[in-house]
Amino acid sequence: MKVSIKFDNDIGFISDDGKDDVKIKNSIVGKDIYHSPTELLLMAMGACTSDDVLVILNKMKMDIKSYRCEIEGEKRDEHPRFLKYAKIHYIFEGDVDPESAAKAIKLSMTKYCSVSLTVKNAGINVSYYFTINGKDYEVN
Amino acid sequence: MKVSIKFDNDIGFISDDGKDDVKIKNSIVGKDIYHSPTELLLMAMGACTSDDVLVILNKMKMDIKSYRCEIEGEKRDEHPRFLKYAKIHYIFEGDVDPESAAKAIKLSMTKYCSVSLTVKNAGINVSYYFTINGKDYEVN
Repeated sequence: MKVSIKFDNDIGFISDDGKDDVKIKNSIVGKDIYHSPTELLLMAMGACTSDDVLVILNKMKMDIKSYRCEIEGEKRDEHPRFLKYAKIHYIFEGDVDPESAAKAIKLSMTKYCSVSLTVKNAGINVSYYFTINGKDYEVN
Repeated sequence: MKVSIKFDNDIGFISDDGKDDVKIKNSIVGKDIYHSPTELLLMAMGACTSDDVLVILNKMKMDIKSYRCEIEGEKRDEHPRFLKYAKIHYIFEGDVDPESAAKAIKLSMTKYCSVSLTVKNAGINVSYYFTINGKDYEVN
């Protein structure tokens, strides 16, 4: 696979590989409306594991009404400004069994989600929890 | 920092954190027009190092007419489907001194670019080269 970006005076960076535009903040143009590279990394982690989890729960015939995922992180102060941690929060509405959700998340975060496991393999702490219809659960 | 995405029946995933929309492919909706999570990771690497390199070259008063960056990778077949490698190609047009470009790239890829160095620290080979006005250069 190959992706590409180009410098743009108004935006910062914008993808130019023929797929849907992704606009990225850079420090020369400095527009905060666009996600930074590290924010994109967090989003890639969230999308990667969410894909696994939704596919697994669909196979289990769970009736998911809506799904969101929040991914939080913080960069250390010294260079290179690695993430100190990443925290993934899976948020379901619908008829979802908590044990099945925990199983799906654990499977993704230990066996399938290559992006999150890459970050974890780099020594960064990646934690996760989930919420179903407003109730929070830990994954053990 | 915190980002978020939500599942969307037409797109796959779309960011919903108040910043500019990023649309991401997922395997349930399956639309190839949107970048996959791993493609987003490659893009994050490219944007991260490109930011460093352009800032450094701007400080050196290089007259860059245009700038693009291509980032290539390939996933292994077995799970987790980690990148086998990532290759970053910096493409400049303008009055850019090759030695300065090499120096900027090396500085980014050894000291500053947290996203690429995270991938490298996970044991993935990250290589890079650059082109100025159509001529290719290695970074040694």
